[in-house]
Amino acid sequence: MNEGTLQGEARFRRRAIKVDEAMRLVMEALELGRQESVPLWEAAGRRLAEAVSATTDWPPFARSGMDGFAVRSADTALASPGAPATLRIAATVAAGALASADVAPGTAVRIMTGGAVPPGADAVVMLEQTTDAVVDGQPAVLVKRTAEPGQNIAPRGEEFRCGSVFAGPGELLRPGHAALLGTFGYAHVPVYARPRVAVLATGAELLPVEAPLAPGRIRDSNSAMVAALVAQHGGVPVLLGRVPDEPGAAAQAIVDALQQCDLIITTGGVSVGDYDVMASLLSFLATDHPAGKEASAASFASAAQTAAKPGLLPQDSRLLFNKAAMRPGAPTSAAVLSGKLLLALSGNPGACFVGFELFAKPALQRLQGATPEQAMPKQVTAQLAGSFTKGSPHERFVRARLYTENAVLCAAPLGFGKSSMMASIPEADGLIRIKAGSEGAVEGDIVDVIVL
Amino acid sequence: MNEGTLQGEARFRRRAIKVDEAMRLVMEALELGRQESVPLWEAAGRRLAEAVSATTDWPPFARSGMDGFAVRSADTALASPGAPATLRIAATVAAGALASADVAPGTAVRIMTGGAVPPGADAVVMLEQTTDAVVDGQPAVLVKRTAEPGQNIAPRGEEFRCGSVFAGPGELLRPGHAALLGTFGYAHVPVYARPRVAVLATGAELLPVEAPLAPGRIRDSNSAMVAALVAQHGGVPVLLGRVPDEPGAAAQAIVDALQQCDLIITTGGVSVGDYDVMASLLSFLATDHPAGKEASAASFASAAQTAAKPGLLPQDSRLLFNKAAMRPGAPTSAAVLSGKLLLALSGNPGACFVGFELFAKPALQRLQGATPEQAMPKQVTAQLAGSFTKGSPHERFVRARLYTENAVLCAAPLGFGKSSMMASIPEADGLIRIKAGSEGAVEGDIVDVIVL
Repeated sequence: MNEGTLQGEARFRRRAIKVDEAMRLVMEALELGRQESVPLWEAAGRRLAEAVSATTDWPPFARSGMDGFAVRSADTALASPGAPATLRIAATVAAGALASADVAPGTAVRIMTGGAVPPGADAVVMLEQTTDAVVDGQPAVLVKRTAEPGQNIAPRGEEFRCGSVFAGPGELLRPGHAALLGTFGYAHVPVYARPRVAVLATGAELLPVEAPLAPGRIRDSNSAMVAALVAQHGGVPVLLGRVPDEPGAAAQAIVDALQQCDLIITTGGVSVGDYDVMASLLSFLATDHPAGKEASAASFASAAQTAAKPGLLPQDSRLLFNKAAMRPGAPTSAAVLSGKLLLALSGNPGACFVGFELFAKPALQRLQGATPEQAMPKQVTAQLAGSFTKGSPHERFVRARLYTENAVLCAAPLGFGKSSMMASIPEADGLIRIKAGSEGAVEGDIVDVIVL
Repeated sequence: MNEGTLQGEARFRRRAIKVDEAMRLVMEALELGRQESVPLWEAAGRRLAEAVSATTDWPPFARSGMDGFAVRSADTALASPGAPATLRIAATVAAGALASADVAPGTAVRIMTGGAVPPGADAVVMLEQTTDAVVDGQPAVLVKRTAEPGQNIAPRGEEFRCGSVFAGPGELLRPGHAALLGTFGYAHVPVYARPRVAVLATGAELLPVEAPLAPGRIRDSNSAMVAALVAQHGGVPVLLGRVPDEPGAAAQAIVDALQQCDLIITTGGVSVGDYDVMASLLSFLATDHPAGKEASAASFASAAQTAAKPGLLPQDSRLLFNKAAMRPGAPTSAAVLSGKLLLALSGNPGACFVGFELFAKPALQRLQGATPEQAMPKQVTAQLAGSFTKGSPHERFVRARLYTENAVLCAAPLGFGKSSMMASIPEADGLIRIKAGSEGAVEGDIVDVIVL
């Protein structure tokens, strides 16, 4: 009886790094993506490539905030319901037009909401606070209250001064930005292009979604989930099906994907099984181990019974990490191949989902121009509605439902949370972070939660 | 000196209804939209048209959760690091394959994550907790710990029983649903179609976005904002430009829009100005006033100096409301024309934004199959970080930034909140509801907030 080859993790030279460190490595490895100009109507949801600024003061003129009459406030100083000020109507100005007359003492100009307040006037009186009248055969208006100087007038430049920047590079454009861009005449908007994301699955057990089930086999559900996540976060999923199980063919599929995509996401094949092709491929890049590339490849060759050799991936490839101190998703791996990021997510749906949120979503944001800070997952604090009394050597990410109760944000862990389980993924709107250590967390604790 | 025609609100027979009542009227007026079948890859973000259910037990077989060895737990009952159980390796089963041998007493089967546990085995031992060995020239494995029955095995049907419904009609499909749909073989998914939404602006002052500014004029920014909001909430914006100012031509533009769209949104023209064409058109429908249609039309004709007549809109048109007890956006109006909803939002960007969130977003969700409950804005409680000491006769909706501090959800009102102002719209992620009344709200109060 003799002990044999290296087993499991040791074979693949795996050293777990902390999640925050892994996220930092991914962020540093990325370069900003391509830029393009898109019509304003399509700009929302994209990130800005260049700063955009006010092209005029805003409002561009003193603007009436009400339908009513532009007046000189001094003319109304003594007005009251019993003794209204009587002002001759000198002109009517619609929104979009200019008044044919200034507002001279003793006169008023009929004005609509959004209209340019004519010279001479310093206040607008609401239509409802006036009464039409005729004085000496001329149309007039009765004003029953004192008007304050400036009332119902938005002064020129109140919101923006010409030239002031209203959104900077990397900013996610929301519908409110569309209003500003339209106001300032940006019919086209400089944005980052939607990254093309290769989605590949590994695993001999996988069937296409449309296939009938067969004994021992399951359908590829991760590709559908990852494609939906990619689209949700601004990318264009490029569905490339299943990665071949043989390392040489798998490497070729990945090299092909590099040609047409900006980011590559694989699911599965990262564990310690004999057929875990992504783990095998990436082990060639694990140079930090004393044994180096050659030994790693050799041990793979013996363990996986293939003719795989190092050098299958591009020369300029480098591993970022092949184990993260997290649960689920510890075998999640990342590498840079010819300047492009490869994320090898777990094949377990729950772990794949967590890996996407922690690494792929920020990567997508970064490729779309977000700063590293903007790209990071949104994290809040919440009160834990549940307990995790068992500690874990790795940080845990627990799918949760978020709700508020009397202004307290609560995070309730969802059932069916095992990494292999899918049932609770659709309901999750947060990931509770339970710190590594012996203690866990108990109901009522304040915990960090990543908002999905 | 004689008093003249009706002024302002009175002219348009306006009676404010409460916001919740207005929302209910909109919801009741809507019918569910069209249904269609889309490829799984495009289903996320849509709402389901039919219930979907598990087409098999899930997992479909007892599944290994680990890479390791399938064993009989009884064979390991006495195992310890000093005295490991020695089991002959009877077979290897990859994920996707079936074992060539059952697990007989004294044997183990090498198994990968996701593999079907062979008959006879009731536990899987992690690869890392084993050592390869050779016994009597045969491959064997040493197990150093007792295995518990069931360990690392997901029993068949653990997550879903065949036939169990995992999502119902109206449910918004998220990436996690894509995983489930893929798992159960839904290559195509029955969903509601994206509603086509006509976007029309009113106002003689409006220039197209690409035009240079001219004195007294501004660019149409609301159409860009509304289009972005429509797209964000699952609709297809159909940009129809500016509504003519003349009621007959405006009515014709709206009738044309009804032919090609499921929902019509106009911005502007709802106030009390002489040129507020939407208010004029809808006044023809305001039959609840004692004076009825004729008087309303007559007063419009005299006030707006046009030849407008009732009957411009389809015969089966009815007004839902033409004033809501809200600030901003009081003149927001809604009608049903030939069974389709017309929402006439304010032209003030801030009021337009609030009106969209309160009425158009729920309408879009309803047209996409949401139940009235699912369609309503998401509302939470938050602690007010700011004060509104002045009461208001109407409920107020204040743009706010949401953040958590030690698990307390806080809502900070944003500056530049006047209805005419756009500057803070992009930053807003909530709308604080300040109840009508004399009191307002002060810092620290618990308030309702609509999450954007």
